[in-house]
Amino acid sequence: MAGTEDGVSRRAAMASLGIGALGIGGVALAQDASRPPVDLGTVVDGKVLFPPSQANSEAQPAPPPNADAPADRVGFAIVGLGKLALEQVLPAFAQAAHARPVALVSGSPVKMAAVAKQYGIAPDSCYTYADMARLRDNPAVQVVYVITPNALHRQHVIAAAKAGKHVLCEKPMAPSSSDCNAMIEACRAANVKLMIAYRMQYQPHAREAIRLARSGALGSVTLMDMINNQNQGDPAQWRQIKALAGGGSLPDVGLYCLNTARAVLGEEPVEVSAQIWSPPGDPRFREVEDNVAFTLRFPSGAIANCMSSYSTHRLSRLKLIGSDAWAEMEHAFDYQGQNLRVTRLVDGKDQIAETSIGVKNQFALELDHMAHSVRKNLLPRTPGEEGAQDQRIMEAIYEAARTGRTVRLAEVPGHDRFRGPESLPQ
Amino acid sequence: MAGTEDGVSRRAAMASLGIGALGIGGVALAQDASRPPVDLGTVVDGKVLFPPSQANSEAQPAPPPNADAPADRVGFAIVGLGKLALEQVLPAFAQAAHARPVALVSGSPVKMAAVAKQYGIAPDSCYTYADMARLRDNPAVQVVYVITPNALHRQHVIAAAKAGKHVLCEKPMAPSSSDCNAMIEACRAANVKLMIAYRMQYQPHAREAIRLARSGALGSVTLMDMINNQNQGDPAQWRQIKALAGGGSLPDVGLYCLNTARAVLGEEPVEVSAQIWSPPGDPRFREVEDNVAFTLRFPSGAIANCMSSYSTHRLSRLKLIGSDAWAEMEHAFDYQGQNLRVTRLVDGKDQIAETSIGVKNQFALELDHMAHSVRKNLLPRTPGEEGAQDQRIMEAIYEAARTGRTVRLAEVPGHDRFRGPESLPQ
Amino acid sequence: MAGTEDGVSRRAAMASLGIGALGIGGVALAQDASRPPVDLGTVVDGKVLFPPSQANSEAQPAPPPNADAPADRVGFAIVGLGKLALEQVLPAFAQAAHARPVALVSGSPVKMAAVAKQYGIAPDSCYTYADMARLRDNPAVQVVYVITPNALHRQHVIAAAKAGKHVLCEKPMAPSSSDCNAMIEACRAANVKLMIAYRMQYQPHAREAIRLARSGALGSVTLMDMINNQNQGDPAQWRQIKALAGGGSLPDVGLYCLNTARAVLGEEPVEVSAQIWSPPGDPRFREVEDNVAFTLRFPSGAIANCMSSYSTHRLSRLKLIGSDAWAEMEHAFDYQGQNLRVTRLVDGKDQIAETSIGVKNQFALELDHMAHSVRKNLLPRTPGEEGAQDQRIMEAIYEAARTGRTVRLAEVPGHDRFRGPESLPQ
Amino acid sequence: MAGTEDGVSRRAAMASLGIGALGIGGVALAQDASRPPVDLGTVVDGKVLFPPSQANSEAQPAPPPNADAPADRVGFAIVGLGKLALEQVLPAFAQAAHARPVALVSGSPVKMAAVAKQYGIAPDSCYTYADMARLRDNPAVQVVYVITPNALHRQHVIAAAKAGKHVLCEKPMAPSSSDCNAMIEACRAANVKLMIAYRMQYQPHAREAIRLARSGALGSVTLMDMINNQNQGDPAQWRQIKALAGGGSLPDVGLYCLNTARAVLGEEPVEVSAQIWSPPGDPRFREVEDNVAFTLRFPSGAIANCMSSYSTHRLSRLKLIGSDAWAEMEHAFDYQGQNLRVTRLVDGKDQIAETSIGVKNQFALELDHMAHSVRKNLLPRTPGEEGAQDQRIMEAIYEAARTGRTVRLAEVPGHDRFRGPESLPQ
Repeated sequence: MAGTEDGVSRRAAMASLGIGALGIGGVALAQDASRPPVDLGTVVDGKVLFPPSQANSEAQPAPPPNADAPADRVGFAIVGLGKLALEQVLPAFAQAAHARPVALVSGSPVKMAAVAKQYGIAPDSCYTYADMARLRDNPAVQVVYVITPNALHRQHVIAAAKAGKHVLCEKPMAPSSSDCNAMIEACRAANVKLMIAYRMQYQPHAREAIRLARSGALGSVTLMDMINNQNQGDPAQWRQIKALAGGGSLPDVGLYCLNTARAVLGEEPVEVSAQIWSPPGDPRFREVEDNVAFTLRFPSGAIANCMSSYSTHRLSRLKLIGSDAWAEMEHAFDYQGQNLRVTRLVDGKDQIAETSIGVKNQFALELDHMAHSVRKNLLPRTPGEEGAQDQRIMEAIYEAARTGRTVRLAEVPGHDRFRGPESLPQ
Repeated sequence: MAGTEDGVSRRAAMASLGIGALGIGGVALAQDASRPPVDLGTVVDGKVLFPPSQANSEAQPAPPPNADAPADRVGFAIVGLGKLALEQVLPAFAQAAHARPVALVSGSPVKMAAVAKQYGIAPDSCYTYADMARLRDNPAVQVVYVITPNALHRQHVIAAAKAGKHVLCEKPMAPSSSDCNAMIEACRAANVKLMIAYRMQYQPHAREAIRLARSGALGSVTLMDMINNQNQGDPAQWRQIKALAGGGSLPDVGLYCLNTARAVLGEEPVEVSAQIWSPPGDPRFREVEDNVAFTLRFPSGAIANCMSSYSTHRLSRLKLIGSDAWAEMEHAFDYQGQNLRVTRLVDGKDQIAETSIGVKNQFALELDHMAHSVRKNLLPRTPGEEGAQDQRIMEAIYEAARTGRTVRLAEVPGHDRFRGPESLPQ
Repeated sequence: MAGTEDGVSRRAAMASLGIGALGIGGVALAQDASRPPVDLGTVVDGKVLFPPSQANSEAQPAPPPNADAPADRVGFAIVGLGKLALEQVLPAFAQAAHARPVALVSGSPVKMAAVAKQYGIAPDSCYTYADMARLRDNPAVQVVYVITPNALHRQHVIAAAKAGKHVLCEKPMAPSSSDCNAMIEACRAANVKLMIAYRMQYQPHAREAIRLARSGALGSVTLMDMINNQNQGDPAQWRQIKALAGGGSLPDVGLYCLNTARAVLGEEPVEVSAQIWSPPGDPRFREVEDNVAFTLRFPSGAIANCMSSYSTHRLSRLKLIGSDAWAEMEHAFDYQGQNLRVTRLVDGKDQIAETSIGVKNQFALELDHMAHSVRKNLLPRTPGEEGAQDQRIMEAIYEAARTGRTVRLAEVPGHDRFRGPESLPQ
Repeated sequence: MAGTEDGVSRRAAMASLGIGALGIGGVALAQDASRPPVDLGTVVDGKVLFPPSQANSEAQPAPPPNADAPADRVGFAIVGLGKLALEQVLPAFAQAAHARPVALVSGSPVKMAAVAKQYGIAPDSCYTYADMARLRDNPAVQVVYVITPNALHRQHVIAAAKAGKHVLCEKPMAPSSSDCNAMIEACRAANVKLMIAYRMQYQPHAREAIRLARSGALGSVTLMDMINNQNQGDPAQWRQIKALAGGGSLPDVGLYCLNTARAVLGEEPVEVSAQIWSPPGDPRFREVEDNVAFTLRFPSGAIANCMSSYSTHRLSRLKLIGSDAWAEMEHAFDYQGQNLRVTRLVDGKDQIAETSIGVKNQFALELDHMAHSVRKNLLPRTPGEEGAQDQRIMEAIYEAARTGRTVRLAEVPGHDRFRGPESLPQ
């Protein structure tokens, strides 16, 4: 093949080798006996499979995503068009494989019209809160995703259940255990699924960290350190209003520490101590708490030291500490930026190893899990019961801080007692 | 508001405060005179704007993406359904704001049917290579994206231009300067735009690195170190066949080093030296080269030391080295994983600072740039002339390695002489 | 000067330029009028000063160390020849500038003879514990460094004080507050200094972290996260025996968290909560505790979440978390390996900046501080009172864990109330 | 042992357990039958050995250093009291185990007196350059360490050899191959050892990197990337004067790239290409070169891309790139701060692993190697022949840059042909 200096003679050379049945790029490849045929991919069950292009020592690129055709996806109605819905959730559908937005619910017709136009949602699939019962008549809607302020979750979840739709509800589930119980009961009565949007249980680095802890690869995991801090701005935003938010940093960001600590070993805490402090005179903390430090003890003896803040520079971090090794995630609870490092002894020396884990949109993974659970009729990994248990523990944390006493919690034997199967769409 | 212990009494408490005109989540907020109203977002020019939620010391979340409604986007035809198209490009449209796939061209009807179904492309927008002239009759297609083997770019770009469509062509542009010139000429004759898919010139970390170098923030940038290595597997893949690939590691991965080195200062190299080595007997390198080390000298005196490989573990890295500071990107040319660190003296001590730059899909950025260029009738940042210049330099690199001599290149005065404006969609 | 191809002609060329008064390396330098004279260093106050060799954009190398001649250094007697003394302290004298070992005290004549030979200590400067009173007659000994098991510190410190020598005592100071008080009293009565060997208050990265927190550069520091874990081996070692160690992970490694948290803002905690857990049946924890999680609250509202362990993989980490930024030290409490990273917003993006701080031996810094305090008659930065305060707080931590209640501590107004000046030798 | 609340009752409790023969800290330990005896260390061959204190999952602390008593160490004369000698070499003796400074040679009596006082060197062991022959009469001097400007190495090495002393000579060995040969010949004639001070071949991280490359753990190492840049200040310093320095960035800092590249696989390069550029008008580069980019090709096909600079911000980095993995050292050629990271595929994902390697002073290791070589009558790892080979290759680099041609070098079959054994003192 040497000496072909330009495209014309190159193609002439190819032609001179003889033209075979299998072409590439519309040009038939030479049937050179000394050269195996080029594999251009095969189609199996509607999916295109390619041979590996890289050597065995290399990570192969991810295969083409196995996404449903748009029309085949599970349809979601989005209830509440605030920052989270518009900045994170709605854009995430584009990275989902099995979910699509098909309806909106909002109190603002102007805002809803702008969003509907952007996402190609028909005007007759746009509803007011008062109209939620009409969702029943929209067959494109299979799931209702409630993204309203925390204190309103109860009424919107119940409205969705009454409309006969499965429900995905943002965390925290609700400001009180009695709210949570009422939501679970409403969904049970309506025979619809209820999932709480705990994105960390679907995020790949967190899942790998949990897998490591449970596998014994870290030895016996007896300590955890969890931090989730941010610094709130505008004191007038709903998160600073107790009647809407239910609480301050604990239910909003501290909940990630609590929920992840519970998920690591699958145990439920039996004891909690806590201290809470809010800076006097800061208008952000007239109604809700700022800094929370809490310590959970689990039946195996494992202790989780946790911290949340609403007045310090953003920091989210997770450490799982075992007898033989420890794992750390930076940006643990952020929307992106996670990594995972494990420190252990190798050949007599400490080694820090960071594994490259492909970035995936957490909200898309969550949406796909809900779609999969609906299609396969499975309990979601994080059902309403998972949210209710967190709420019970948060109530104990508040009590421990208020009383200055360690609070004991009801023992929950077994593992993953409030969780569904890990089953995920392929 | 203290003492509201459950959802029912909380909502009662809210009601007791009096119900105002502005509701949230369908529930009217109390008109508490001591509390400013909650800002639920405003709509300006069809876009929803929220007030900042975080303190001034914090990064604010990105605003809702300003994506076009699906039907309003620029339509692309994808030519060639290989690994790159299926694994990277087609999934990336979901993260684009202004582009959508509307047609396919492939030699494999079975593969094309599977892809068309997944992406919701109508059967009558699926074409064979022989049919490309019929693209002219499809008004939904505004841009043709050519993703076939390198040696076939010429004929497919020309076919698209003849069909009256703008063209986005994968890199390397073509195996010879004469190919490149013919492609540029065909697009000029057809009065269509031609862009080469140099994703690094659109990737945010690389753009920031280039901005730093040009701003003087690193002092005078006089040295660059660029590496792009991977380890090829199957010797039968088209990239190992000279008639299809045009060359080995240099045009495939080394091109990123070359193109980025040129883009950093906007100068064109005047001198190149090189050494090439391929392991004897390795079936992957019967036709194309393996390792290439090349050194570029620029008119300002800046020197770029570059390396590409087809037989070593994946490594891609970029360093821009100035008199006062140096910048480094890890995973510089990979599809994801970029970071950017700058080392400089601060208060008498060396400091390494890594800036958090939001992750964006590189292919989506590239697609949006092409869509924007078409809509606004702008020369793309990386037009055909950019690709042709790289090809001229690669031919000099091969010559330098073959002759063992430094090869001089034609001087190109000015800056960014082969590039269009940086204008990007907002 | 071009064209001088070998040493002979080069030197001839130099000679031909004319020989000046100032030589270099024994060869006179040419008096080339166009070239300024080479500055070979000047001697000021017995110290050699060189001009900077690097550009202004660069860190200059550290100047020659300003160490005393060996015979001029402050003489230390080492009491106790265990692992810490032999592996860390005695080797560290070589990196000190003002201290030297001149005497030993041990219960093992064989071990002492081997050590004395290695460090050039005369046989008549080797003592048994019973002989410590004879230190009074050794004028070379100015300081006695007590490195025996914790429970023995009291008697050895008192013995040293009675011999009229200043005392440096390893941490933890002693197993009880009454021990601490007795030690302070004995040194006061003997009019000798007492310093507790808190190396973190001398370690450069920790000092810089404390400086940052106090400077306001992090905003208001209201949260700290401190971890110090290790995994003990042999259950028979003295650290697992309560009568010798006084306690388990808390006084040994958790003390670093406690002491550093106190040092950050210079405040004293007012409230402590804690949980302790030891694995049943583990022979290492028959007498002393394993894992301790404790939370300190300070008068300003700052909260420190702390953790220590004797059964998990080595991990030591410190975070100082402010309203505007946070600082993190890896390997915070280890003998080496510290770094310091600060995360803050810069130009609207989060930036992680690591400052290069020269590595210095912590023990050498501690020895030099004590030598300096003795010479200048200054209260050491970490006197006995600092150790006694830590012991009081540790007793509160044990009580909080035992009772499940938050324990209040006596308020200590002011800042750095138990510390001497930061004055360090230059 | 429970319930002992203060030191007095604790010690009473210990006494009540019965007093055994083996004491600790002067206090006899109870002979508790249920508790094994405490191992306080044993003395073997004059060395103290302790049992491991940490669990098997942990790195054990380094054992007590096996240093010679001061009087037993190999005595060094330091020739030249410039920045390197005073800032690095003389302080490093304190961290050496087998070497000590016993004599000085300088042209500045005032500077020498100050240094002699600091290091406890007697006035009659201080010499002028003209006096070097008198070193013969000083039996305390076994090795002469030449740290004068490069162009003076020849005369000082020869003077030392003529005085019958072994010689350690700073790098670069000398400005010309003929100088190098003369130095080797003089030492051979005098029957003394000649070692060139290539600290990287003794630095632990570099040694581990070389071990990895040779072990096959990275696969076949076929590419290297080496950078060593700094930014010179004062144009009047001797390093900018060709008659003293011999050259610019290449022999000073680029030499580290060259020497390390050669040491990695033990091969000698067969081909070199290069480009050199100095900024016109910069007073630092009137005589010596600034930036050098050079590419070495080795017989196995391995290629090293190297760069040195005298005008850019400090950056030193080393990459060894193999078919299966690659290793990177940051701060590769700096006096401290090295790390070592290896990237490879583990369980299908890329993993970056950093191994914790204990920090050791590079100059101390070099001094100890020379002391060991003298004591054991071994060829040093980096003898004069190693330096002469580097000089030959640097001359080829200058020629390649000047002529614009690849320069072929004489083939040197075998491995490590210019090196002595790796034998190091234990």
